[in-house]
Amino acid sequence: MESRAVPRGPSQIASEFESRTYPREADEDDIKDLIQMYVDAAIRAERAGFDIIYVYGAHSYLPLQFLSKFYNKRTDRYGGSFENRARFWIEGLAAVKQAVGDNCAVATRFAIDTLYGAEGVEVGDDGFKFVELATKEGVVDLWDVNIGDIAEWGEDAGPSRFYKANHQKPWVKDVKSIANVPVLGVGRMTSPDDMAQIITSGQADIIGAARPSISDPFLPNKIEEGRLDDIRECIGCNMCISRWEIGGPPLICTQNATSMEEYRRGWHPEKFEKAPDPCSVLVVGAGPSGMECARVLGERGYDVHLREADGELGGCVSYIQRFPGLAEWGRVTSYRQIQLDKLKTVEVHTGIGQMSADDVLTYGADRVVVAVGSHWATDGLSSVTHAPIPGVDASHAQVCTPEQVMAGKDVGDRVVVLEAEGYYTGASVAEYLADQGKQVTIITQLGSSVHYTDFTLEAPNLHRMMHEKGIKELSSTWVHSVETGNEVTVRAYPIFGDGYRRSADPRTGELPRTANTHIDELSCDTLVVATGRLSNSALFTELKARKDEWAAEEIDAIFHIGDCYAPRMIADAVFDGHRIAREFESENPQYPLPWIRERQIWGGETYPSLPANGGA
Amino acid sequence: MESRAVPRGPSQIASEFESRTYPREADEDDIKDLIQMYVDAAIRAERAGFDIIYVYGAHSYLPLQFLSKFYNKRTDRYGGSFENRARFWIEGLAAVKQAVGDNCAVATRFAIDTLYGAEGVEVGDDGFKFVELATKEGVVDLWDVNIGDIAEWGEDAGPSRFYKANHQKPWVKDVKSIANVPVLGVGRMTSPDDMAQIITSGQADIIGAARPSISDPFLPNKIEEGRLDDIRECIGCNMCISRWEIGGPPLICTQNATSMEEYRRGWHPEKFEKAPDPCSVLVVGAGPSGMECARVLGERGYDVHLREADGELGGCVSYIQRFPGLAEWGRVTSYRQIQLDKLKTVEVHTGIGQMSADDVLTYGADRVVVAVGSHWATDGLSSVTHAPIPGVDASHAQVCTPEQVMAGKDVGDRVVVLEAEGYYTGASVAEYLADQGKQVTIITQLGSSVHYTDFTLEAPNLHRMMHEKGIKELSSTWVHSVETGNEVTVRAYPIFGDGYRRSADPRTGELPRTANTHIDELSCDTLVVATGRLSNSALFTELKARKDEWAAEEIDAIFHIGDCYAPRMIADAVFDGHRIAREFESENPQYPLPWIRERQIWGGETYPSLPANGGA
Repeated sequence: MESRAVPRGPSQIASEFESRTYPREADEDDIKDLIQMYVDAAIRAERAGFDIIYVYGAHSYLPLQFLSKFYNKRTDRYGGSFENRARFWIEGLAAVKQAVGDNCAVATRFAIDTLYGAEGVEVGDDGFKFVELATKEGVVDLWDVNIGDIAEWGEDAGPSRFYKANHQKPWVKDVKSIANVPVLGVGRMTSPDDMAQIITSGQADIIGAARPSISDPFLPNKIEEGRLDDIRECIGCNMCISRWEIGGPPLICTQNATSMEEYRRGWHPEKFEKAPDPCSVLVVGAGPSGMECARVLGERGYDVHLREADGELGGCVSYIQRFPGLAEWGRVTSYRQIQLDKLKTVEVHTGIGQMSADDVLTYGADRVVVAVGSHWATDGLSSVTHAPIPGVDASHAQVCTPEQVMAGKDVGDRVVVLEAEGYYTGASVAEYLADQGKQVTIITQLGSSVHYTDFTLEAPNLHRMMHEKGIKELSSTWVHSVETGNEVTVRAYPIFGDGYRRSADPRTGELPRTANTHIDELSCDTLVVATGRLSNSALFTELKARKDEWAAEEIDAIFHIGDCYAPRMIADAVFDGHRIAREFESENPQYPLPWIRERQIWGGETYPSLPANGGA
Repeated sequence: MESRAVPRGPSQIASEFESRTYPREADEDDIKDLIQMYVDAAIRAERAGFDIIYVYGAHSYLPLQFLSKFYNKRTDRYGGSFENRARFWIEGLAAVKQAVGDNCAVATRFAIDTLYGAEGVEVGDDGFKFVELATKEGVVDLWDVNIGDIAEWGEDAGPSRFYKANHQKPWVKDVKSIANVPVLGVGRMTSPDDMAQIITSGQADIIGAARPSISDPFLPNKIEEGRLDDIRECIGCNMCISRWEIGGPPLICTQNATSMEEYRRGWHPEKFEKAPDPCSVLVVGAGPSGMECARVLGERGYDVHLREADGELGGCVSYIQRFPGLAEWGRVTSYRQIQLDKLKTVEVHTGIGQMSADDVLTYGADRVVVAVGSHWATDGLSSVTHAPIPGVDASHAQVCTPEQVMAGKDVGDRVVVLEAEGYYTGASVAEYLADQGKQVTIITQLGSSVHYTDFTLEAPNLHRMMHEKGIKELSSTWVHSVETGNEVTVRAYPIFGDGYRRSADPRTGELPRTANTHIDELSCDTLVVATGRLSNSALFTELKARKDEWAAEEIDAIFHIGDCYAPRMIADAVFDGHRIAREFESENPQYPLPWIRERQIWGGETYPSLPANGGA
């Protein structure tokens, strides 16, 4: 959308990824132009000093579109037979090799199976054939093989919910037997053991790792240095990808709070400025935010006590990692637990029960960071109506919050789940209960209860999972009221049930359109309310109210972070804990320092100024 | 998302606009902070030389959130009674006035009715009361009044599909009777007569016009100069807003191709570089792209013949403007028709029938621009399967394309509409037919058949319209095959009906998951296929194939633009016609020149260089 450029492709069919984008059907002159563009780009890249030039054909990029019957409906010498469909790619590779092959290796990334069956590229057919042909032609110096297409690139960049590390192996494992040059493979590899096995078993020569490197940019160094414990493993939540999919906001990472903050906030992923005058800090609550805050404060030399009411670290992650498919999200906790154990100035205390304001005030710390999280509303309060739902009360046996479900509260056979955030909680609780044989219906005000997973690439398989497990979804629907009794009656209404024409004049006390009269009554045994969250704000509020006692206890400052400041995504809670610890000596660490907003022109000035030492 | 900042608000309830964004509930210290932020921002703005400082409270901005019972559930002195809910805004205004009031006027934008009835702000209640209170306190120098909230700000920035110019009048017309300072109003005002009436009738003192100024940045000048014919009226499609809603891509405008191109491509909206050596140009086809191309070539001094097969100008707009609610989109044609009439070097010929390649080659023009548009596929070809749908053939009586429906082809009582683009065509045809009393069901592969209208703010009322008119929608559904006969049988399947687990190993010739077996048969009398579009490419293809004849006919070059190059949105077709005409002397006008990609730091260098004369 930025360039307003119009693509050229093998055939004129709108994109299955962007359903309003049509290419021009390239004629032979266009094909010459396009190949020349590859050549020109390669020459520029060579001139800029690159050693390896990719002719990219994964994710349904142009060369693959020519190869694939799904995209290519041509009847000329660039369509039809395998040789004709492969022609564009082979010619492009040859031209690039001719142009820069003396100085650069020419690589190609190839989705060796688009996973459509016979309608697309299959490894057992065009996939191997293309590797054979390109090998025979001698136009590829490095193969980078993966699977999948662009519309469902979660089949390649698999979220951990559905795909474990090296999930592509059965599709890519035999490429090396055909290719006579090095082969690179991907698959969210974070474990050195897995990596070694892939190399020694002959599956691949080189391992590509994008998400694992976002989560830990020093992954290779840590392996080399034998610091395996220090690897911050990607959890496969695809939060990084979600921001690319949204298009615009910076990439963020649940595990790595410094992701995309290296330049604009001057944060090095592994280097921390030592505190000039470290004091003692009590961090109350060891969820994602509290753990990260304690870790970074510890790295900076602060004397930290991290105290957790529960018997284990993790906060909300402790129940989230028990949702179907989300076990790897537990790495948010395990990575930090290991790091906290290593930090000499950090003590971790678990199972201490909730700290009262008195406990905190008399603890003896110079500074306090409250990070006690949030909880799901028990009364149906949501963004939809900004009000509780009449009849909803999770202290009642028939109504549960997500935490209550995961803590083992009894749930009946027929379940209705209300989901208002539009991410993973409602669907996860639904799957958890469906796996126990329950009939589950999700109600959401949004177009989809898993709206945000369109961006994390989890959506297609989540929808398939719901279909397969018989989980029903009522979208664009919300609940007027609930009645508990022998069974639960849920009165649902269509969000867009009001009249579409506004009244001619304002009518005080009335809606300015015909009010909805359509109500559907659903019966169930248990209602689960994932409608909205509330900060556990009581502790900070009381501590603040008793500010006049701080001096006597030699407390300099008390802050609150993460969900207990405001509920948010785990990535943002980790970020908040990291940020306050990085900026702990600022005038008011509660609020972020300014960051560089301009895209810097190389060598130019920025405002605020770029730190000379990269923040370390 | 860019800043990762967490908002503070009156109460902790997730946003109805961004359902995963929760604020912190501001305490009194936060409120002092927030007011200080307004003051600091006002002082900065004063220092930068601004004369009017807004304390913005429309679109559910913070001051309105405090005033509105929908957001404000507080029980302290900032919540509860009207006076308490108004306190934040009044204090903020007073503080800003105190800080900059000697040099600047302090304005406030106020959504005087949030259109929720008694749950929000109503003009007959808190709306007028707030104007009265702020007037009594003397803290507002200029009122800017509108209506609506943020989640449905299409109730303010009303698309023409649902709201005509000055649609807010019944809500805002009496503000002047209370306020003792100037009152500004908005409402997509493009007509000087409407504007004059608003002023003279006492509805408002000042007219704000954002979208009309995007469509024509020189609107005020043209009124002043009496050039009323030259006003390029906004069509109310909200394409501009859609890009803001998407967040990231540049704002574009259907009527004004120079929007957001002023800097990066150096295009002045009203100034055109005279052609150094104007030749004669034949433009074939007077749709959006051809009309715009002819207009800009004419402004640049070229000798242009614009020739249209049909009896009227407009191309696809001719039928689109007949869809319910879209009459104003006809301004795409009418503006250009008027301008073309004025251009001395442009001749327009209509009703000439389709030009053959022979006609074009022998016409006598130095250059030719082919702009003959696109048509809807007649065989069900779509982005979904990249294949026709077996059994679909619009030459059959029971199957229609959208153009055929609008041209009057017979449609039975029960209609199924297939929509694969996800914008307005399917829903518009459906409404057109529902208004004739037909039962209509829309099938789309997307989550919503009107997906893109989430961004143009048309979606909420489109959904309400469909509900009210009984138009059913099967989303995430596509069609396996169709059978015509006594009635039409449509075999629909769920897009996500396959198994969610991939098979363990590749199986050549088979899907790598359990294949869907769920088929729903729908019966109807007529099937409408808005599945995909195809360029009318035959003319250009033939002309190009006969390139060896060009020299004999003294033809220097032949180009193709708009939908006949590749189908696209009207805004992009207009842009394409404009662009080629601006760049008609470039080495190859078929393709765009590079544009400036950097965000310029004031006074800094750019690549490519910024033209010294602004491109004019």
